[in-house]
Amino acid sequence: MRQASFLSAVHDRIARQRADPAWLASARSDPLNRLILFIDERPLLRIAEAGAAELVTICVNDHPGELVLIGRDDRNRLLFAAAVDPDSALARTSSAVDLRSVALQGLLAEPELAQLAQARSLLTWHARNGFCANCSSRTTLEDAGYRRHCPACQANHFPRTDPVAIIVVRHDGRLLLGRQPSFQPGIYSALAGFIEPGETIEDAARREVFEEAAIRVGNVRYIASQPWPFPSSLMIGLVGEGLTTDVTIDAAELEDARWFDAAEVVAMLERRHPDGLNVPQPFAIAHHLILAALS
Amino acid sequence: MRQASFLSAVHDRIARQRADPAWLASARSDPLNRLILFIDERPLLRIAEAGAAELVTICVNDHPGELVLIGRDDRNRLLFAAAVDPDSALARTSSAVDLRSVALQGLLAEPELAQLAQARSLLTWHARNGFCANCSSRTTLEDAGYRRHCPACQANHFPRTDPVAIIVVRHDGRLLLGRQPSFQPGIYSALAGFIEPGETIEDAARREVFEEAAIRVGNVRYIASQPWPFPSSLMIGLVGEGLTTDVTIDAAELEDARWFDAAEVVAMLERRHPDGLNVPQPFAIAHHLILAALS
Repeated sequence: MRQASFLSAVHDRIARQRADPAWLASARSDPLNRLILFIDERPLLRIAEAGAAELVTICVNDHPGELVLIGRDDRNRLLFAAAVDPDSALARTSSAVDLRSVALQGLLAEPELAQLAQARSLLTWHARNGFCANCSSRTTLEDAGYRRHCPACQANHFPRTDPVAIIVVRHDGRLLLGRQPSFQPGIYSALAGFIEPGETIEDAARREVFEEAAIRVGNVRYIASQPWPFPSSLMIGLVGEGLTTDVTIDAAELEDARWFDAAEVVAMLERRHPDGLNVPQPFAIAHHLILAALS
Repeated sequence: MRQASFLSAVHDRIARQRADPAWLASARSDPLNRLILFIDERPLLRIAEAGAAELVTICVNDHPGELVLIGRDDRNRLLFAAAVDPDSALARTSSAVDLRSVALQGLLAEPELAQLAQARSLLTWHARNGFCANCSSRTTLEDAGYRRHCPACQANHFPRTDPVAIIVVRHDGRLLLGRQPSFQPGIYSALAGFIEPGETIEDAARREVFEEAAIRVGNVRYIASQPWPFPSSLMIGLVGEGLTTDVTIDAAELEDARWFDAAEVVAMLERRHPDGLNVPQPFAIAHHLILAALS
């Protein structure tokens, strides 16, 4: 079975050295170290005629501007990432591809997908956080991209990681799945929502399911987590036991939600549902939560 | 056994209505609804002579300024929270007490501790996020405190919840515990660190343990989560299996870390360790992770 995409574990983030300017200057001057390139939020790929793709990287010492450290790869090179100008020469010989499409279409594999996920979250955060939220001054990129500092009020700002509770609720052999208007046609998936301040993972999941579908949830079991770099979510995957069965959807969030019996979900997984309904592909954690809820 | 503090589940957050200005205006005008008060980051309490304490609340319609919604309490009242001026009359007749002390000393119980945790995270975030990080303009509080909006660039900003992996590693019946210089004397606890962009919960825990103590961790099991409002962490509690045993501490993070055998940990839990060593009290999730790792 194909794993979910963007799972990390493949590289050393060098978190203790990246705050050392001398170490960083040395790492940046070594042409063996590589730089991954993005235009806006899309990584640059070279697409072969057969549909195969290759991640574009350049020597890091060719890049004078701001960058973020990804870590050490399995060939013992340091990887960095940076945003480049849409008018650059590289942009003309490469394709900037949405990362979700890269994963969904299998254009690249791990560990590159996980490296791109990390890079995309960090670069997007820097692009949207040039000023100090505390005092409005311009901030500077520090610690190889893992901190921004305000020289005026001395505040430090750290990249966001936004935890999301994502849950498949089951009751009496049936699974509760819903669809947002933005989903591809026919796709039904787990319900999900951001965990709010002062809330446990489990209670956030219960609250979301009640708000979106009016179903009460009892026991909740943790299954797995997945970074979801759109822009910086951490999907925390759960299976829960429904205590009630009458679904009322919140039309502001969902287009539909209903109970599916196990045979129907298996047909969706196997892409042979009579109405063409589907569940998300294995690159998304929802696919694996649905499998866990069936087992 | 006493539960960890700040666990939520006690109130409806009214997330669907709080963005409706008419609903909010009506809720604010109802004197039955209550306002919890903070000075800086400390809730106002009335301390009785016997050491008992009571949370200070006022009618919400007495407060003309900015506030955040907590939710509906078990008496069907809406709860809000706001920061008040240190020179106000209320400040003179009440005590502003650090929330960690309120929990540690048992001055208040749930659900009030969870309500205060939620309030503290939200109020601290608003106090430090008056400007748009994207364009530097002044932002406005919206959705009863669950959003800030930039009228200049139209960016929306949401309160942070920072996930932290906290883990007790075990190997051959022994537990790996460490102490930071900031801990109370004699306390040893679980290792912990912020989950970074592009990282799973499990890999963040493995990375932190390797960085802080040079121990490799294999299997990791999720135990429980706890909101930790200092200022806005979500502690994600784990037990992991150590693959190596030679501890080398990172002196920038830890003052000490070592393996404790089960009998020694039990003595620490029962506060009868011969050297006066202790583990955190039950209000902290680390206590419960240590119990889980022993079982």
